Amino acid sequence: MLPYNIHHVAIAVPDLEATLEVFSALFNVRPISREVVEEQGVREAMIAIGGSHLQLLEPLTDDAPVARFLARRGEGLHHIAFAVPDIEAALDHLRAGGARLIDDSPRRGGGGHRIAFVHPSAVAGTLIELVEIDHA
Amino acid sequence: MLPYNIHHVAIAVPDLEATLEVFSALFNVRPISREVVEEQGVREAMIAIGGSHLQLLEPLTDDAPVARFLARRGEGLHHIAFAVPDIEAALDHLRAGGARLIDDSPRRGGGGHRIAFVHPSAVAGTLIELVEIDHA
Repeated sequence: MLPYNIHHVAIAVPDLEATLEVFSALFNVRPISREVVEEQGVREAMIAIGGSHLQLLEPLTDDAPVARFLARRGEGLHHIAFAVPDIEAALDHLRAGGARLIDDSPRRGGGGHRIAFVHPSAVAGTLIELVEIDHA
Repeated sequence: MLPYNIHHVAIAVPDLEATLEVFSALFNVRPISREVVEEQGVREAMIAIGGSHLQLLEPLTDDAPVARFLARRGEGLHHIAFAVPDIEAALDHLRAGGARLIDDSPRRGGGGHRIAFVHPSAVAGTLIELVEIDHA
């Protein structure tokens, strides 16, 4: 059960395209997708690196959670996402372990995947996302 | 050239063993190594997840850089590390691109790998480590 991969590492940035240019120039990596996820108030881009991804998050509005993160902490690392084969089972396991969940049940995230967030207070001050990825 | 994998995602924590217990209980993941890296003033543990790792960092002393990070930001995401096949070539490329480097030349890090850090001001407010991994 539980995570079989670090699906992505997310970085909050004020200007997604400018940051993509920096990654391209310095690290020779380019986005494999760009997407607006209205529900989360972000424009996002995914950069594939090996078997994982960097995800860049730019807020769509000043009151989006990512905008508040940028105002409070500045640009930088925002969350990590674990790929899980069965997100309901993962959430049940986390609940049974007493972890505080942001999402009690899965919702749709980028790429159409079912996702859920675990509160940073549950694990090492780190915002953790679960992403259901069915490799079957 | 340049990164072919996200080698690890590092999390700064005040108590490495307690955090390992949380990861074990909630995510069923366990460390594959524990190590003291005196030069960086840290005790570290690596947890393998898929083709990448989580690295937990606990400061050895109150004046270690990771201790200062914890005092300033609290526990949480600290840096990401890219695996590169040739760290001198990567540093040359970054220098040519105008990136501010913390380490002008490689030094020894955990696992005996040659590593170097890139300053967060270079890329998206994110501390990036290069780790030379020779798969040949």
